[in-house]
Amino acid sequence: MNILRGKRLRNVKEDVARYTTSLSFDKEIFEADILCDIAHTIMLYKQEIIKKEEAKKIIEGLKEIYNKGLGNLNLDPTLDDIHMVIESELHKLIGDVAGKMHTGRSRNDEVATDLRIALREKILKILKLLIDMVDNLTDMAIEYKDVITVGYTHLQHAQPITYGHLILSYVSMLLRDIERFLDSYKRVNLSPLGSGALATTGFNIDRELTKELLGFDDLIKNSIDAVSTRDFILETLSNISILGTNLSKICEELILFSTYEFNTVEIADEYCSTSSIMPQKKNPDVAEIARAKLSSLNGNLVSALTILKALPNAYNRDLQEVTPILWDSTYKIIDTIKMVDGMLKTLKINKDRMEFLAKANYSTATELADTLVRYLDIPFRKAHNIVGEIVRKSIEERREMLEVAKEVLKEKNLEVPEDLLIKALDVHENVKLRKVIGGPAPEEVERRAKEFKERIKEYKKIVEEKEEKIREVKNKLLNYSIN
Amino acid sequence: MNILRGKRLRNVKEDVARYTTSLSFDKEIFEADILCDIAHTIMLYKQEIIKKEEAKKIIEGLKEIYNKGLGNLNLDPTLDDIHMVIESELHKLIGDVAGKMHTGRSRNDEVATDLRIALREKILKILKLLIDMVDNLTDMAIEYKDVITVGYTHLQHAQPITYGHLILSYVSMLLRDIERFLDSYKRVNLSPLGSGALATTGFNIDRELTKELLGFDDLIKNSIDAVSTRDFILETLSNISILGTNLSKICEELILFSTYEFNTVEIADEYCSTSSIMPQKKNPDVAEIARAKLSSLNGNLVSALTILKALPNAYNRDLQEVTPILWDSTYKIIDTIKMVDGMLKTLKINKDRMEFLAKANYSTATELADTLVRYLDIPFRKAHNIVGEIVRKSIEERREMLEVAKEVLKEKNLEVPEDLLIKALDVHENVKLRKVIGGPAPEEVERRAKEFKERIKEYKKIVEEKEEKIREVKNKLLNYSIN
Amino acid sequence: MNILRGKRLRNVKEDVARYTTSLSFDKEIFEADILCDIAHTIMLYKQEIIKKEEAKKIIEGLKEIYNKGLGNLNLDPTLDDIHMVIESELHKLIGDVAGKMHTGRSRNDEVATDLRIALREKILKILKLLIDMVDNLTDMAIEYKDVITVGYTHLQHAQPITYGHLILSYVSMLLRDIERFLDSYKRVNLSPLGSGALATTGFNIDRELTKELLGFDDLIKNSIDAVSTRDFILETLSNISILGTNLSKICEELILFSTYEFNTVEIADEYCSTSSIMPQKKNPDVAEIARAKLSSLNGNLVSALTILKALPNAYNRDLQEVTPILWDSTYKIIDTIKMVDGMLKTLKINKDRMEFLAKANYSTATELADTLVRYLDIPFRKAHNIVGEIVRKSIEERREMLEVAKEVLKEKNLEVPEDLLIKALDVHENVKLRKVIGGPAPEEVERRAKEFKERIKEYKKIVEEKEEKIREVKNKLLNYSIN
Amino acid sequence: MNILRGKRLRNVKEDVARYTTSLSFDKEIFEADILCDIAHTIMLYKQEIIKKEEAKKIIEGLKEIYNKGLGNLNLDPTLDDIHMVIESELHKLIGDVAGKMHTGRSRNDEVATDLRIALREKILKILKLLIDMVDNLTDMAIEYKDVITVGYTHLQHAQPITYGHLILSYVSMLLRDIERFLDSYKRVNLSPLGSGALATTGFNIDRELTKELLGFDDLIKNSIDAVSTRDFILETLSNISILGTNLSKICEELILFSTYEFNTVEIADEYCSTSSIMPQKKNPDVAEIARAKLSSLNGNLVSALTILKALPNAYNRDLQEVTPILWDSTYKIIDTIKMVDGMLKTLKINKDRMEFLAKANYSTATELADTLVRYLDIPFRKAHNIVGEIVRKSIEERREMLEVAKEVLKEKNLEVPEDLLIKALDVHENVKLRKVIGGPAPEEVERRAKEFKERIKEYKKIVEEKEEKIREVKNKLLNYSIN
Repeated sequence: MNILRGKRLRNVKEDVARYTTSLSFDKEIFEADILCDIAHTIMLYKQEIIKKEEAKKIIEGLKEIYNKGLGNLNLDPTLDDIHMVIESELHKLIGDVAGKMHTGRSRNDEVATDLRIALREKILKILKLLIDMVDNLTDMAIEYKDVITVGYTHLQHAQPITYGHLILSYVSMLLRDIERFLDSYKRVNLSPLGSGALATTGFNIDRELTKELLGFDDLIKNSIDAVSTRDFILETLSNISILGTNLSKICEELILFSTYEFNTVEIADEYCSTSSIMPQKKNPDVAEIARAKLSSLNGNLVSALTILKALPNAYNRDLQEVTPILWDSTYKIIDTIKMVDGMLKTLKINKDRMEFLAKANYSTATELADTLVRYLDIPFRKAHNIVGEIVRKSIEERREMLEVAKEVLKEKNLEVPEDLLIKALDVHENVKLRKVIGGPAPEEVERRAKEFKERIKEYKKIVEEKEEKIREVKNKLLNYSIN
Repeated sequence: MNILRGKRLRNVKEDVARYTTSLSFDKEIFEADILCDIAHTIMLYKQEIIKKEEAKKIIEGLKEIYNKGLGNLNLDPTLDDIHMVIESELHKLIGDVAGKMHTGRSRNDEVATDLRIALREKILKILKLLIDMVDNLTDMAIEYKDVITVGYTHLQHAQPITYGHLILSYVSMLLRDIERFLDSYKRVNLSPLGSGALATTGFNIDRELTKELLGFDDLIKNSIDAVSTRDFILETLSNISILGTNLSKICEELILFSTYEFNTVEIADEYCSTSSIMPQKKNPDVAEIARAKLSSLNGNLVSALTILKALPNAYNRDLQEVTPILWDSTYKIIDTIKMVDGMLKTLKINKDRMEFLAKANYSTATELADTLVRYLDIPFRKAHNIVGEIVRKSIEERREMLEVAKEVLKEKNLEVPEDLLIKALDVHENVKLRKVIGGPAPEEVERRAKEFKERIKEYKKIVEEKEEKIREVKNKLLNYSIN
Repeated sequence: MNILRGKRLRNVKEDVARYTTSLSFDKEIFEADILCDIAHTIMLYKQEIIKKEEAKKIIEGLKEIYNKGLGNLNLDPTLDDIHMVIESELHKLIGDVAGKMHTGRSRNDEVATDLRIALREKILKILKLLIDMVDNLTDMAIEYKDVITVGYTHLQHAQPITYGHLILSYVSMLLRDIERFLDSYKRVNLSPLGSGALATTGFNIDRELTKELLGFDDLIKNSIDAVSTRDFILETLSNISILGTNLSKICEELILFSTYEFNTVEIADEYCSTSSIMPQKKNPDVAEIARAKLSSLNGNLVSALTILKALPNAYNRDLQEVTPILWDSTYKIIDTIKMVDGMLKTLKINKDRMEFLAKANYSTATELADTLVRYLDIPFRKAHNIVGEIVRKSIEERREMLEVAKEVLKEKNLEVPEDLLIKALDVHENVKLRKVIGGPAPEEVERRAKEFKERIKEYKKIVEEKEEKIREVKNKLLNYSIN
Repeated sequence: MNILRGKRLRNVKEDVARYTTSLSFDKEIFEADILCDIAHTIMLYKQEIIKKEEAKKIIEGLKEIYNKGLGNLNLDPTLDDIHMVIESELHKLIGDVAGKMHTGRSRNDEVATDLRIALREKILKILKLLIDMVDNLTDMAIEYKDVITVGYTHLQHAQPITYGHLILSYVSMLLRDIERFLDSYKRVNLSPLGSGALATTGFNIDRELTKELLGFDDLIKNSIDAVSTRDFILETLSNISILGTNLSKICEELILFSTYEFNTVEIADEYCSTSSIMPQKKNPDVAEIARAKLSSLNGNLVSALTILKALPNAYNRDLQEVTPILWDSTYKIIDTIKMVDGMLKTLKINKDRMEFLAKANYSTATELADTLVRYLDIPFRKAHNIVGEIVRKSIEERREMLEVAKEVLKEKNLEVPEDLLIKALDVHENVKLRKVIGGPAPEEVERRAKEFKERIKEYKKIVEEKEEKIREVKNKLLNYSIN
């Protein structure tokens, strides 16, 4: 029975209880709720709102419930949510004094606090995985800094690059994802506790104290905003969707590059499947499922945005439905980072095929045009046109580009030494030449990789400090004793 | 162990298996898969592709597995999916002959078939609930056909209507939802079976026969399309989102109308909750949660659309991820229809407050303008301006509208008999007068309700026939014996 | 100046007027609004609500405004919308009697009517383009029915198919899109006219008459629903998104197949671009832009769904913002169908490359397994395993599959005549054998193409009849004279 | 004619050109493109890649084109985009040397640079408007710090608050929006210039120099990432959607609170409209349209996310379609901030109604329970139950709460002095008591408002510095002379 309804409302029906309960996803905030209860109780006692003995009983009871674990609690849906499950369990353990725990507090500020406590850990988990991944990728970039391959635009051969350079593009992009999560963390790790239902309380509570005990960086300093905003969730879901979009690019390349036609990489067997009917198949299932799971992150973001549209202040029950979406997205992204990282770590690359493709289809035409510009001092646009003509002729007449180039230049009375032409058309020379900041030249790939390594180290340190702080908070509260 | 990988691929890792398996949501197609297996086996036997004894063993084994139930099968994630779980279970029961079941078939056509079998039942479930709901609402409309209330536009008082008329607007709208699901049903209930992996098979299978056995209305007549399309899911999710949008309108009105400020309806206690801190609260939680759950249907639609974007033919593993989204949306809409129906059935209405509001705030101004048009033969636009002036004056001077009307008309030398003015301003007369098709007049509400009842009856019949057909198909296949 | 505000409200500011006006997208309903005005005026006259002479003046004025064209009207944003622009223009032409046109009507039912009139034509336009496209594709399928290529699953080689078979998969899928638009057309082509602001009117109007005059198939028979529903737009946007998803699959294949790596098709120059820097490039820009534009249809659907979430009855100004989204999506899909159709019609295919790929990578392994099943009477699963082993060995040892097959079978003491093995591995034989309904065999492709042709003819007829009806309605109303 | 196609590709068709051109939305980057051209030319000259005289001619030509203005250029869609329009115009002015401007650059890095230049100004515009708005709101909060009103949860009366406290909740929330845009600004204001098509260039360019000249904060240090990422757009669109969600809450409250039923605020006439048929209407059209426009921001975000899903590296033409979406969302949010700010600044509030509602419906029940806790030292849960009973009885028997409270307490043998009960039930006392951080007490509202003022001042300074820097960059480049 729901102790809240008391004499105010008749009892709820079973199917309604099942429809409205949050218990199925409240497991995510079980620990957070206990932490929140303990911190609030300590504060009530320090502010002399409840007595020492009462506080002691409550805290000991909470620790017992925590150690028993969620699996051993009565998760009756008519109890509504985890807060009431814990209070009701506490009541069983210590009697009516359990009812003092909720003094000067509401489920509205409580759940907002719990969500932030649980979410900050998930964000740190995402950050750690991302940092590990970019760290691996940076090593991989150095390893493959000399491997020539073709770079695509419009999925057509564009210019020769190094495979290390392509891998660094993943690093460069994922570093921004890391920054985004770090930026958002500041707005997640804020304490709403003490805001009550929406108007704080008449009890002389100390919001600063609970903030400190729970390891928050600051308070949300308007109680209506504190209990009703879920923008920290929207922000997290946006970050997850953007990261998902970035990862989907990697998955797409894995799928494409491992086709028979591209054949430049091979995904490890353990990330592939075969067919129930076609015995020859080796399918990139993990990359496909990842691509799909990453797509559904967008749907989750839409769900949350749609739910939160035009809700008046303050708390509305709609907010509850945002929560399972959040956890779904965090798990999906956590699992998918692991999978993509795993595929990349075990990826075999086919250097011969890469170099073959780099040479196969006019990828050095730009450098030829640039050479004409430099040697003949003609405008780039004119050189571009000449080389366009050379390419067309070479394709139509199925002849070597060098040969056609010499012929076309001759017709136009333009003289360029043959060795310059040969150099321009050479993929290795091409790549070596492109050593400006961010370019594909092996020496530049190495320089950049080292610089990225430094940033990665810094991020790692920041994340580890945050984790350490959280560990301390938990340790302190879950072992708190009043003597 | 996954029997498919055989000697082709090394084994998958535990975490990869967990990431890629569909077993967590395959419970939805367990029965469908058994039906599909039996029908396919019957066909293989009738086409003499397998022998009578083999078919017999397979079918008896499948029936045993079905009766045992999904809960008693080994749902090892490395087995990938329900198809392989069943085949592997069958192998335990009848040995190698189990391997003959998959002759001339692929998991690609199999799963497409299963999804359609499972989905058509969910659609019929939705249809039944909707039909029940509109049936109830039509009765409710008749019951409240004389209850005057105010109709809103822009959430401002517009014109007097009857509450029965408002309820009929729900019916009118939901009838289109019913039509949409019926239209889509035609495109859901099509058989892909026999399409193989993407190219049918060299065995002499009979697609028409399995279509008949499984109760499909027609075949999908291109095997690539058959295995790769999921547009029937997109269509269903769209229908669900549109229905969700329609239901969200009803929820919004329940939430608004049950506020202290509107106070025209009262939601039954069992659909409300109170607060953990504010003992006076009676909150419309079910309507709020419904509003939120309905919002997340849009996110699910987006997930599915995004996953399916730009996937080349034919089957890609991405498709698997669309399925749990589909089931989530079907369950959400099914549960929510029940809740909204339940709230409406138990709704108390406050007739006095409704009538008070209808009279309180100039809702009859339009009729006054119309009266001026009719009696003075002036253009509507002019009458509209005069009444606008009357309203403004009445508000500013806080005087009765009738009094001001007489004064303003006199100033303009326009003469209208007072009884006409009184009648124009009377809410009951107003409503009675609006008896054109679809209008709020009690007599028209009753006429329309009766007409809607007829349509509801027809839809009911159509749905029941489809259900009966499915029952027969199941009954026949699950009791099939070869002698 | 806005004639409506009259003495009721002070004037609006310029920036507010620009923010709230619909005039920028009302051009889409200019003609519809004139048709609606004329039909409504005819009805007012026939019902003796206005006089013959008045009706005559109004109708002649409206015809003059129509002939003058939207470009010659005063589109002052403070006039709010097209309805007021026309009424105000009419007032200039015929004086105060213009004000009689709006008798018994509101902008709420008027705009709902206009939208449906304008939209039905857009839907017919989409339908015609789609029908033309599938007609072309069916011819193309027949032309290429003998061209062997490889069919993909997971973008890996699966089984040999014919290119005609692949093209028919596009037809099969697009025929469902045609059906969906036809189904929705029934719910679009309904008349809300006569519903007034939300409660019909006290004037004795004839809704059946305006319905007939405007060529609607039926009435919406509840006035609140009639003015507030936009589900016909949601339904259209859903259809457009689903069609867009289907077309994006074609675009993706064009992009992939025209890469250097796949190289099975070549997109005509006029649908490609080159690069500002890389002179050799030929990029599939149109297919890429199409893929992107089709993606943004989903966003439009989300916008509309989000706007319509939880709006209480009846009209809310939010509805206005759904309209430009609708037109944007209709234009995007119309233009894109044309582009995709154009690319397909001018596509060059590379038959040699197609056949090469079909043979290159074990695509006939399934048929080999099937052959073992047939000849040796072993379970398919066992055959699947044997062929899996053959493939692995053949890849690892870089040997011909036939040779390895013989060796492996011998090791296992399984005897199969060599000519059967050769036949099983032959791509032409493979495809010929797959002649069940919907299969890739040339004869079946031809059969199916002819059957699809019949359906296309039927749809064409239905669409042409609807167009003809609309032409008549327009012709009659725009030339209506009262004598 | 398109100078790029040259001899490589046959010409494009008119309809294809219209389909693929970006010219319709390139007006947004016209200035940015000129800035980018000038900076690049200066660098080419300083690096001795082009000659002084050449650089001089190009820069003078560019300044002339800029001063002429976009409206006077030939915007032929076959020219593709603004880059080619400018280059082609430059060619008209200075002949072939114009072709030197594109040396060592591609449109891929150029457009990425332009977008960032144009976007950073839009973000600063949004920031300025937001800062002004919160500044106004903070003043408004102080003005209304003593006005008692009711606070809602679940749209039901919860507890008394002050209207100033509610207004501060808007400030508290919008300050986070400001932070988000500031955080993202760091990732927007990065230079991709020098990345070429995807692989930088073989010319000895100086990326640091163009970065400085264009006022960027840093470089993107991988050329593939630099040209292909659009995550800075996704991030901006997410911020806009979250801000939109926050503003939609304010709009919803304006719509609700200005209904006849709530009647606590009145929106100024200039933000309202009346009806074409109902002369009494005053509709909150601006708030409704804002609510809708804010909803469509989500659709835009989805469009962009969907377009960017799973695009392989590097540039794909799909990216182009993201741009008009970005500008649409920036304009929508800019206009809407202005409107919401305008409505709030001119809002009239109805203090009497606010106080009436605060007193009308048991909003002080929580304080009564808290009083029982304090005075009787009973657990909160027990007090909550007692007060629940008091409320129920008071509603059912339609009696004053104080009276019922005394009765119920007496029945339970609980003694509380009457003056404590009276004080607990007094809304003014209630609010005064809630003075913890973030609470509704007038003194706390004032404290918080002052603190927020300080933060606003800081943000203002940051934004003004950024604007100043951009002004200088523009001034320098648009007046650059080589002598």
